[in-house]
This record gives sequence, structure tokens and C-alpha cells, in this order.
Amino acid sequence: MNFAVIGAGAWGTAFAIHLSRLGHPATLVPRRFEQALALASGHENTEHLPGVEIPSSVQIGHELTPVLMEAEVVLLACPAQALRETCGRIQKNRAHATQLRFVISLAKGVETGTHLRPSEIINATIPGVRAGILSGPTNAGEVALGKLAAMVLATARACSDTAEIQAAISGPNLRVYTSDDIVGVELGGALKNVYAIAAGVCDGLRRGDNVKAALLTRALAEMIRVGQALGARPETFYGLSGFGDLIATSYGSWSRNRTFGQHLAEGRTAGEIISTSHSVIEGYRTAQSLAGLCAERGIDTPVLNEIHAVLFKQKPLDQTITDLMGRNLKAE
Amino acid sequence: MNFAVIGAGAWGTAFAIHLSRLGHPATLVPRRFEQALALASGHENTEHLPGVEIPSSVQIGHELTPVLMEAEVVLLACPAQALRETCGRIQKNRAHATQLRFVISLAKGVETGTHLRPSEIINATIPGVRAGILSGPTNAGEVALGKLAAMVLATARACSDTAEIQAAISGPNLRVYTSDDIVGVELGGALKNVYAIAAGVCDGLRRGDNVKAALLTRALAEMIRVGQALGARPETFYGLSGFGDLIATSYGSWSRNRTFGQHLAEGRTAGEIISTSHSVIEGYRTAQSLAGLCAERGIDTPVLNEIHAVLFKQKPLDQTITDLMGRNLKAE
Repeated sequence: MNFAVIGAGAWGTAFAIHLSRLGHPATLVPRRFEQALALASGHENTEHLPGVEIPSSVQIGHELTPVLMEAEVVLLACPAQALRETCGRIQKNRAHATQLRFVISLAKGVETGTHLRPSEIINATIPGVRAGILSGPTNAGEVALGKLAAMVLATARACSDTAEIQAAISGPNLRVYTSDDIVGVELGGALKNVYAIAAGVCDGLRRGDNVKAALLTRALAEMIRVGQALGARPETFYGLSGFGDLIATSYGSWSRNRTFGQHLAEGRTAGEIISTSHSVIEGYRTAQSLAGLCAERGIDTPVLNEIHAVLFKQKPLDQTITDLMGRNLKAE
Repeated sequence: MNFAVIGAGAWGTAFAIHLSRLGHPATLVPRRFEQALALASGHENTEHLPGVEIPSSVQIGHELTPVLMEAEVVLLACPAQALRETCGRIQKNRAHATQLRFVISLAKGVETGTHLRPSEIINATIPGVRAGILSGPTNAGEVALGKLAAMVLATARACSDTAEIQAAISGPNLRVYTSDDIVGVELGGALKNVYAIAAGVCDGLRRGDNVKAALLTRALAEMIRVGQALGARPETFYGLSGFGDLIATSYGSWSRNRTFGQHLAEGRTAGEIISTSHSVIEGYRTAQSLAGLCAERGIDTPVLNEIHAVLFKQKPLDQTITDLMGRNLKAE
């Protein structure tokens, strides 16, 4: 099966290496021409995935038209806020994309302003393809090195195409499960980045493991409440794309969103951290968007609201954990 | 409210300090006379909670009869396998225990052989008192230092007594929620110790964060399956005593059960580790008991079975993670 991976951050690069290891023709398409040149000549993504060799079987592309002529599956490995523009470029270069059947997002976020999920953006901008999302607890470095992992491939409804892609991208090191709850899988991925910021704040404030676990317990309950209100199934959030990704991100030293929260708690400002970061901190914009959406819909989200207040209303961090934990005593 | 804490391991000591900080008369009763002497004179539990001062407001007791004359609530802070014998001693010294209303277990395990949960042991051995369980993600050291935490107090049915104790043991640093799903709270605490061993095995084998998160996702699903089959409510396992304690224990560097799994993966034998450990590794005996119970009842528990095979049937560790992850591809 022929794959194109659009976007060469850590995760896009790792996934292209994974596909190539399984024997699939895979083209990795960095955004900038200079990056494409560097990857093609150096066989390493020094900026986002240093120390991992990109095998020569991974093709490096730049122009979308020739890449799309062969691709059956396009994987979008760009930030949520860049999805619309990336999808637009695919649609514009689609004239000869006769093989293209599936466009799958690897992004974990929602679009600011519209509150749209990745699959909704794909459906709105690239008519006639099937949209999917691939999510779960996956530190890119580990996948690139062939360490064992498990993920979920979600489409709006299961069909033979979904099973075909599931089989193609699964291998001895990556187990892929399917789900037809695309809303739940997308919201789980988006929300866990927000809650990981709160977990990082706990770490940075050195509040201990007990309160971090209690906070994440609340976060999972809130994730389910938001998901149900927006049309997802609760059980999806207990799976790899909810619970699994929430804990991997909240405890992983490599997690950008967790680290962002930790740095905030250590006294840096959001603006400072974002301006010096190599990568996009998805949870930052997602917190803004989902806090707005939940307020509009009247969904009760105390954890999300606290994070939003810290990020966008200069609420003191010290107060936020105490406020979250200090609500009235009640039955669980 | 007058409390007696029977057992002076890390958790019993920490909880007595917590109660005393809230202004309650609290007597801590170590098992051995020498330990009682050492605690009373040194104001420190050097063996189990070194570096933390035991305030002089915590009374140190030894004989049960005088302790039980004043206690309204007895907290059992001994290992699950010692509960029956401890309860037997309480019953034997109960003649003047006119104030005693509640016996609450802090243990997280089930009794080998009988498969009984802590509250079942209390009910069977100390007739006429109310049995309860106090559980959740609580590293003893953090509670002793007054760091923020949240727990669940479960009784077979909620009543005014439960609310009274909830209010008494809650404070600015410890939020206590109530539950009437005592089966679920007890099984969550027992099972999380078993799954934390598996998490430690992942750590010791250096298999990475992705597979650890995937394994814990399966573990949570299995915990719920076991719980439902044994009469618990699924939602209890998504709370502090299930999800919350599972993640705190599986990621905490201080966790005995996680560390036990890590040491196994690093090549030590279970017998060696247990014989050199200061404290009881509850998950070891619980794995044996619950694997037996689930087999009897026909409950599907692949994760528990793998851990049982490693601990009691010399199954090679390397194989176990791969076997768990290598099942057939399917919908999540």
C-alpha cells in the first residue's frame, strides 16, 4: 500500500520509518524545501528526531502533485491549526491523485475558532475521500526505534477499507485497533494534551504523586463528560486514545504538553516557552478552543476552565491546584 | 473523634500523623513491643518512614485493651494476610471497647485461600461493628508531610456514620469522598497492586512508555471485567480507588509493587526480593489468590494470568509482554 506522510515533525518522521520498515512505499513530505533537502541528504531529522537514521527506503518528497499521483493513503502529520491549509494544498494538487482513498490525521487538537475536529476539516476540504484518525499513546522516538506500541484507527463507520489499512500499518511492533467512534478518539487526543499541561503544572510545583493522580482521575471523568455531550461514547475514553494516551503524556518526560505545564510552574510565561519551542504545543490552543466550546454548550469542565484561566487569564498557578481539589466533600 | 491505628508501617504511621494534625486523639499501635518503644522514644519510624517526625500528640500504644477502651474508630494498617489475626486480637480484647463503632481497613489485597476482601474479614471476625475501607492514590510519605491527596471511604451502604467519619478525616490536605460500592473499592485496591507489578516489569525491561500505557489500558479494562463479575460497579474503577491508584502506583518510584516488578525484570527472583524487603509486597499474594478465583469463576484475565505465570510458574519475562500485546487484531 502506498503512503504519503505530510509533515516531518518527530511523529511524521517516525511513522514514515515505521511504514517503510513494514515494506510499504512511503514518501515523507516536509513543509519546507530546505528541510526536505536536509532529510534527503543527511538521512536524519536533526531538528525533531535526532539520532534516528531515516532508511533510504523512505522517500523524501516536496512537490505534492507527484507524491499524490501514487499515494493511496495520505497521513497528515501537521499541527491541528495547520490542517486546513495542508488539506487545501492536497485538494489543489489532486487532479492526478487517482489512487487516493484515505486521508488520515495524526493531529491531536481542534481548530481554533471553528472548534472543528481533524476529520471534520478533512471532510470539509477534500471531498470524496474517506477521513480517519490514528491516535493513542505513542512517543515518536520509541516508534522510530521499533519499540512495541498500540494505537487506534478510527473512521466514521467501519468498512473493509478500514480493515485493509489496519492490517497494512500493523506489524510486530505496532498493534492497531479499529474504532467507529471517531468523535471520541479525536476528542480524547485533543483533551489529553490539555490535561497533560495540568499534570506538568503538578510536577513543576512539586505537589507530589498523590494529587497528580487525583487530578488525572478528575480529568478522565471530565473528558468523558465533554465527549458524551459532544456525541462520543464513554467507553472510547477508557481505551488507548483516552486513558492510554492521557497517562503516557502526563507521565512521559518527553511530552511537550506536560513539559510546557512544568515550565509554567517553574515561572516561565506561556509566550516565552512557545516562542523558544521547536514544536507546536497542541494543548495550548486546544484549551482555548474547547473551553470556549464547552462554555457555549454549558458543559461542566472545572479542570479545563482552570487551565484556561492560567493560560489566558493570568490566574496564579499556586491557587489553581488548590481550587480544583478544594470543592465540597461528596460521594465520588 | 478517637482513633486507633493498628500497624505502624509507612501508611499507618502517616495516617496517624495526619489524624493528629487534624486535632483528633490518635493512638498508633505497632505490632512489636520493641517497635512501640522505639517510636515512643525516637518520635520517628526509622524503618518504614524515616525522616518524618511523629508529633508527640500521636500516642504510641501496645496493649489493645486500653487502646480499645477509648477508640471510636479502628483503622487496620496491616497487610491483607495479617488482617484475620489482627481482627481476632481486637475481638479478644473487646470487652471494654464500648465506644467502638467502626473498623476500617487500609489494606489493599485479598486473603489467600479464602479470597476474602478486607471488609469481609472484618465482618466475619468482629461482629456488630461497621466495616469500611479507605483507599486511593496515597504515597504515605506525601500524606505524612501534609501534601494534598484525595481518597475514597467505602462502606457497604452510606449512612450518617459514614458522613461523620468522612468529615472527621478530611482536612485541607486530604479530601475524602464516600462510596457505597465497597466491593469495587476493595477490588480496585487489590488489583492495582498486581498490575503495578506488570508496569514495573515494563520499566525493568526498558520497553518504553508506549507499551506501558497500552498494558495499563488493558489492565484497567480487565479490572472492570473482574469487578463486574464479582459484583462491583464499573464506574468505581474509573475513580480514585481504581484508575487513580493504578496510575499513582504504576508510575511512582516509591511503589513497592512496581519496584518489585522492575527488580524481577532486572534478573532477581521473587523469593530473593521478598526476603530482603522491609515491607510486604501485597500484589504478590493477591496475584495468586485472584488468579485462582478468576479461574474458578471463568473470568477472562489475560494480564493477571501472565503475571501469575511469571510469579508462580517461572514463565520467562521477556515473553510475557510480547504475548500480551500479540493477540489478534480487532476493534478496540
